[in-house]
Amino acid sequence: MRTHRRFSVHMQERPDPRAVELLKRLLDEGIELTFGPDLPGSPRYDLLVAGRPTERELDASASLGVLLIPWAGLPQSTRTAMEKRPHISVHNIHHNAAPAAELAVALMMAAAKALVPVDRRLRADDWSPRYEPDLSVLLEGRRALLLGYGEIGRRIAGACRGLGMQVTALRRRPERTAPECPDTILPPQALHDALPAADVLHIALPHTAATRGMIGAAELALLPADCILVNVARGPVVDEEALFRALESRSIRAAGIDVWYAYPKREDERTSTPPSRFPFGDLDNVVMSPHRAGAFAVRDVEEARVRAIASSLIAAARGEPIPHLVDLAAGY
Amino acid sequence: MRTHRRFSVHMQERPDPRAVELLKRLLDEGIELTFGPDLPGSPRYDLLVAGRPTERELDASASLGVLLIPWAGLPQSTRTAMEKRPHISVHNIHHNAAPAAELAVALMMAAAKALVPVDRRLRADDWSPRYEPDLSVLLEGRRALLLGYGEIGRRIAGACRGLGMQVTALRRRPERTAPECPDTILPPQALHDALPAADVLHIALPHTAATRGMIGAAELALLPADCILVNVARGPVVDEEALFRALESRSIRAAGIDVWYAYPKREDERTSTPPSRFPFGDLDNVVMSPHRAGAFAVRDVEEARVRAIASSLIAAARGEPIPHLVDLAAGY
Repeated sequence: MRTHRRFSVHMQERPDPRAVELLKRLLDEGIELTFGPDLPGSPRYDLLVAGRPTERELDASASLGVLLIPWAGLPQSTRTAMEKRPHISVHNIHHNAAPAAELAVALMMAAAKALVPVDRRLRADDWSPRYEPDLSVLLEGRRALLLGYGEIGRRIAGACRGLGMQVTALRRRPERTAPECPDTILPPQALHDALPAADVLHIALPHTAATRGMIGAAELALLPADCILVNVARGPVVDEEALFRALESRSIRAAGIDVWYAYPKREDERTSTPPSRFPFGDLDNVVMSPHRAGAFAVRDVEEARVRAIASSLIAAARGEPIPHLVDLAAGY
Repeated sequence: MRTHRRFSVHMQERPDPRAVELLKRLLDEGIELTFGPDLPGSPRYDLLVAGRPTERELDASASLGVLLIPWAGLPQSTRTAMEKRPHISVHNIHHNAAPAAELAVALMMAAAKALVPVDRRLRADDWSPRYEPDLSVLLEGRRALLLGYGEIGRRIAGACRGLGMQVTALRRRPERTAPECPDTILPPQALHDALPAADVLHIALPHTAATRGMIGAAELALLPADCILVNVARGPVVDEEALFRALESRSIRAAGIDVWYAYPKREDERTSTPPSRFPFGDLDNVVMSPHRAGAFAVRDVEEARVRAIASSLIAAARGEPIPHLVDLAAGY
């Protein structure tokens, strides 16, 4: 209730009625909301909520000072549009850090314990994996290497520590780490030195020009033979063919993969889109997940999204720092 | 090297050569080892390593004061035999607490994220689970209820805390809990009051007369509809039919089950033994694992077993307290 002046927000898309109701309940009085797809009659909004804003939406209101992307990410088209408009600050939300981190940990553990093929065999009354040596690896005492130490990476780190693992993370700006941080934080240049000690490699960094293909054949070759690779970031951070070959030849033990190289573009393609040009589905040492870390259909997570948007709108209206300023030059 | 008198150990079974070598390397000088199946010529062992000792092994040596069971558990036949021989103290080892706890956490997470059916569908190029509402539950902020708070339960608790969950545990002797314990510890009588608040129910207690059927239809009915049940203890702690019905009717969300109601008895039955008289394999909301928590074929764990046996032998030889005294009356 500390908002004094009127503050106007335009949302490119109208959320579903439950979300609108929750949003209105959370917002301070004095925050006015309009919804697209049409622009309001005389556009005078201070903040625009849009992931891929149109030129018109960006230029129609002279008072527009903030763009809020209602998810974690920065589409390339948005980046280009905003680089031309330095007077508008760009923010996004990280409401899905918990489900993304949990999926990463779930994939790590399923890969470490070979849960998927073992489940399939017991459903056919076959207990033989029980007697197979070295089908599982123990995680306690092992070393996790995290690429990325943002909201998601820090949660993965906490879960790994809870399992008795040691955590090292590579971070673009290690100096941002809190002094009480229990993990070892290194700059990205330490990658090649760190890979040979990674019992688990967690990839949880944004997809940018700098991270594309960051893990290729050379990097995979540096990993220990028992290593488990987990990717909940974006497919192209890991080279597609190199990953397939490493798993097929067992030069690494296993992988848990949530992000891929090909996606369904239309609704009618959702049941017939191979996620890669390589037959990952033939491999027993990969756990395959259809880009669910964002968890956008999970009720809890949708509520968290609305709460994150509300927090950012309230901060903006009050003139307080808005969370998660996007660095356009870095690309996230 | 603090062993002064000779201390003799007889092992019912000879471990594999690597294990024997490691054991001899770890033991103090002055500890003599003999191996079965035959008894040594003039049996004079102070300690017997055997899970199911024969009457002859128990009575042949007048100096026998300690029975060490080389795993976590107390077979009923051993319990009966030892109740008649109160002059022999019975100990076991808990070398497999870490893999058992990790399997419990892996099963919880796979069940929470529906990893198994989703993996199966993506292997068939089907992305539709990505768009299915409420296929996953978020664990952060949720409540785990642990039945049992021994070596395994405490590790499960640590992992759950690392995921941002709140932990309550039921323990037969809550007064044994350290004052700095971050979890809520309740006596077993609190079960019915605690079940309605359990988002995840972890079963990690020994199978005894007191725990058999502890979770039946009445208890399952008290769980929330979104609850995930994980059993790495023993099958019969949970009523077989009641569990199947609860999962089939979705009166609970999902389960991760490592311990069953029927087991292969002979090697040739290992590929053809249904784990239950109910068709759990038809259910998508169960993750099925063939009693792997003990992880007896995992290299790391076998080494941990030898190390645990060595520690107990050294303690016994030195006259120090031997870890993990078995309470015959309690049955574990």
